Amino acid sequence: MEPATTPDPPYYAVVFTSVRDARAGDGYEAAAARMLELAARQPGFLGVESAREDLGITVSYWADEASIAAWRQEAEHRWAQEEGRTRWYERYSVRVARVERAYGGGRVP
Amino acid sequence: MEPATTPDPPYYAVVFTSVRDARAGDGYEAAAARMLELAARQPGFLGVESAREDLGITVSYWADEASIAAWRQEAEHRWAQEEGRTRWYERYSVRVARVERAYGGGRVP
Repeated sequence: MEPATTPDPPYYAVVFTSVRDARAGDGYEAAAARMLELAARQPGFLGVESAREDLGITVSYWADEASIAAWRQEAEHRWAQEEGRTRWYERYSVRVARVERAYGGGRVP
Repeated sequence: MEPATTPDPPYYAVVFTSVRDARAGDGYEAAAARMLELAARQPGFLGVESAREDLGITVSYWADEASIAAWRQEAEHRWAQEEGRTRWYERYSVRVARVERAYGGGRVP
């Protein structure tokens, strides 16, 4: 996954942090990939960054709060369909934040 | 690494995303660990979450903007000392965001 290329602030970030229930072959990775594809087609989607070790962190970037609210409604519905009776997360947290400043360095994509 | 336990919003998040220059044994992991220990001793530090695959994401949480400004000054100085002439990142971005809402689920730490 590449770093997200986002416009100048302000915009919004949704920081999703999770600890997986350890269980291979439960279809989680495929379902998560489908959710990312779905997110990328939502109005107001700006980009996403994701990494997982013990802890998984996915940061998605959005133009405004309305885009996030629409995505949340869609995502919860779809995720419930995907998940079925399986519990994929031991725990998770979601933080919605307004990006106020951004800077960086190194090679420009 | 465990998920961070943070107070009720508002507070601040610094999302640091990076792509490493691929180079094992360059002392990066030890230097990064020392930087996290140093961050944890800063006034206003609330917690940190980190994961790395191709992309590394570290989200640190802070009480207010003044804490972030103080940490940035300290961090840039220390990091320059640690890094020496080595280039540890191919590229990176820093986003400073105000956390406005937070929720979660699953087992409480």
